[in-house]
Amino acid sequence: MTTLDPALETHLLATREARLDSYLELLRIPSISALPEHTGDVRRAAEWIAAELTRIGFEHVEVCETPRHPVVYADWLHAVGAPTVVVYCHYDVQPVDPIELWATAPFEPFVRDGRVIGRGAADDKGQLHMHLRAADALFATRGRLPLNLRIVFEGEEESTSESMPGWLEANRPRLAADAVVITDTGFFEGNIPAITESLRGILYTQIDVTGPPADLHSGTYGGNVENPANALARIIAELKDRAGIVQVPGFYDDVIPVDAAARARLAALPFDEAAYLERVGVPALAGDAAYTVLERGGARPTLDVNGIWGGFQGGGSKTIIPAHAHAKVSMRLVARQDPVAIFERFRAFVNDLAPPGVRVEVQRLGAGRPTSTSIDHPVVRAATEALRATFGQEPVFMRSGGSIPVAEMFEQQLGLPVILVGFTNPDDNAHAPNESMVLANYETGIRTICLLWDMLGRDGLGESSG
Amino acid sequence: MTTLDPALETHLLATREARLDSYLELLRIPSISALPEHTGDVRRAAEWIAAELTRIGFEHVEVCETPRHPVVYADWLHAVGAPTVVVYCHYDVQPVDPIELWATAPFEPFVRDGRVIGRGAADDKGQLHMHLRAADALFATRGRLPLNLRIVFEGEEESTSESMPGWLEANRPRLAADAVVITDTGFFEGNIPAITESLRGILYTQIDVTGPPADLHSGTYGGNVENPANALARIIAELKDRAGIVQVPGFYDDVIPVDAAARARLAALPFDEAAYLERVGVPALAGDAAYTVLERGGARPTLDVNGIWGGFQGGGSKTIIPAHAHAKVSMRLVARQDPVAIFERFRAFVNDLAPPGVRVEVQRLGAGRPTSTSIDHPVVRAATEALRATFGQEPVFMRSGGSIPVAEMFEQQLGLPVILVGFTNPDDNAHAPNESMVLANYETGIRTICLLWDMLGRDGLGESSG
Repeated sequence: MTTLDPALETHLLATREARLDSYLELLRIPSISALPEHTGDVRRAAEWIAAELTRIGFEHVEVCETPRHPVVYADWLHAVGAPTVVVYCHYDVQPVDPIELWATAPFEPFVRDGRVIGRGAADDKGQLHMHLRAADALFATRGRLPLNLRIVFEGEEESTSESMPGWLEANRPRLAADAVVITDTGFFEGNIPAITESLRGILYTQIDVTGPPADLHSGTYGGNVENPANALARIIAELKDRAGIVQVPGFYDDVIPVDAAARARLAALPFDEAAYLERVGVPALAGDAAYTVLERGGARPTLDVNGIWGGFQGGGSKTIIPAHAHAKVSMRLVARQDPVAIFERFRAFVNDLAPPGVRVEVQRLGAGRPTSTSIDHPVVRAATEALRATFGQEPVFMRSGGSIPVAEMFEQQLGLPVILVGFTNPDDNAHAPNESMVLANYETGIRTICLLWDMLGRDGLGESSG
Repeated sequence: MTTLDPALETHLLATREARLDSYLELLRIPSISALPEHTGDVRRAAEWIAAELTRIGFEHVEVCETPRHPVVYADWLHAVGAPTVVVYCHYDVQPVDPIELWATAPFEPFVRDGRVIGRGAADDKGQLHMHLRAADALFATRGRLPLNLRIVFEGEEESTSESMPGWLEANRPRLAADAVVITDTGFFEGNIPAITESLRGILYTQIDVTGPPADLHSGTYGGNVENPANALARIIAELKDRAGIVQVPGFYDDVIPVDAAARARLAALPFDEAAYLERVGVPALAGDAAYTVLERGGARPTLDVNGIWGGFQGGGSKTIIPAHAHAKVSMRLVARQDPVAIFERFRAFVNDLAPPGVRVEVQRLGAGRPTSTSIDHPVVRAATEALRATFGQEPVFMRSGGSIPVAEMFEQQLGLPVILVGFTNPDDNAHAPNESMVLANYETGIRTICLLWDMLGRDGLGESSG
């Protein structure tokens, strides 16, 4: 059974139009979890999804309250003897700024050149919708699923998943499963089907530098008062050296180098550096020359300013020493780096760098450990085969530079193996203007999911089964 | 004649209420020259002032067009044999942000605790209004002035006076004079009457760092793409060392050290460093330890970030590599530093610091040379005496850290001696929220101006007269 059940294909062909309408309807809800003014929209998306899950045939559908945004839970557990899989996606999206760079309104999605364009088209509402429609096809054609599924759709993945540890802890009994399939990753460059074998962790911080209680005249006070914006720039400059090596003491202590086999797998990927540079659109790549682009992007830690602000930002000139300046600084972590421990080192280092004329505070806005999956896990093997069968191409294994905080929670808190199977093309502009999803990936990926569930229902998990 | 004409005092006492009403009326016009949306307000202020000049008794009153904001010109030239003085003030004001730190609306001025509070109360509409009312008192009591005055009120001083060189050149014939009195400075700490013997020059720039064409996902691209905000922070950090010494090659070449007499004058000023620190409200002062606070603030050059921005500035977290980052960076210049020459050195240095993964551009937004006046000039001697007589306190000589671009133009372009006499208290919050003017300084300063005009009309300029 490594070809799709023809009844599913017939059903999927017949329902294509309605499926796209439903996909676009979900994208129209501006479920931006980071912005308080969109709290109601996030809930509206949760309720829309819950209604769909009920319609499709899931049971115990619930919009579960958390301290922030709701989790949508549902299950169907009547496949006696078959494995139980938790399916995780998230229905919240990134903010849309800089809004002026969008070709059209981010929450008025449309299809052009074979792509669905709109915020969340790829990350992750599009992929969530694939799971809805895969289950819908199975229920519609058979009245049942080939395995047991527990649905966990999160509403705050894009704002660091604060509520998830508590929710997972409180819902342990209904999260009993053999594995977690997370669909929030994508394909390799060139739209090659891929399974992600590791994710970087994240530590997200904010540095606040405060000087005088109000802006000062830079002529009158310049030369005598420490400038918070200059002080912040110096602090940020000291965080990395020119080669990009992070200078926080002990930062690399728990970075276990990737082994030779993993380096070889990365080296074997059909990566075209010139095409990558062209697509990214910068004059030159940067980073530690001791590593390849793919190693730097997935197997090495980073430090980036995500935002910086202070003082006068208008047209023309205003001659002030700003009262305060701020930066959002995040680090991507790998191997055994612990974001909580690194935050303490980071904060101490930043405080050491602060000049005496200003006050500096460092806040932790988010943290998640790095995660990885064995490429020999039976769900990974089945997913590889399902991808090959549906996309007609040999899938590759890759390391993602991104972070999915909940992956680490499933792994650490619940002890569940996590498998990362996603379908977006690398040029999807996730987190950026003009986010898009290749419609063919969406359509074929629904078939991949159906086939994967059928394979796991038929073959089980073999000896690795939990 | 070193006491005020009693007829003037009688008139000024009788017109106090109406004078305050008129002062507040002028402050209500939001004449922010840096912001295009206030262009009409700047013109409205010019027209208000022109109408006042006409009512008071000036001739040839004109709202003169320039490429940007108008210059208000007027004169009265019937004091045969008496000196001719150009009076310069500006009627434009700084922007008001951060608006949230104002106790009340910046353009709804009011009086509290003996101060007029509102944008422009001190810098410079309040001081301009003092000149209007001094002339008004003289015309009202005598029907004439004791000397010849040419009024030049500028509308873009707070946005670097771009139009002034051209306007001054075109108006050479009607700027023939013996001296220029600029009232755009203030008193010494502790509200001690002062004459400013030097002003710093200014070079105002903007650094624009551009990376990818749109924001990128910091997980996917972090480690391989130069981050424009990190690059900008590093550039800024390299512009000064930890002691505040500017690192631009050749920056100090034309800084002629202040001589021993000038250093002694500064050292003799009743400066209370603890009170200064308390008033500024920072944990510690900063700056080159080889100089005193007053030397650093008036006789040494500086470099300050006036504003910085790039990437995500909202609440929570957004995981991007920003597409671009920007900073407004200005330098205060002293002695013979030439802003145009320094700009070229600055730009070259910034370009040298730019890493290969980003594009960096440096714009010049404004430039003005430093200026200084001999403390022996007859107008300086007369002003000293007028201040002493009206305020009942010995005036001091000080060096201002600020810049008045037009001072240098009067000096360099027209060859006129420039005398800086102003009346604001140092805690006036110029350029900052809750700008204010001590009402007693405003009232007494009007008497100082009347007395100064009477002294110059009676005594002339002696042998130094031009």
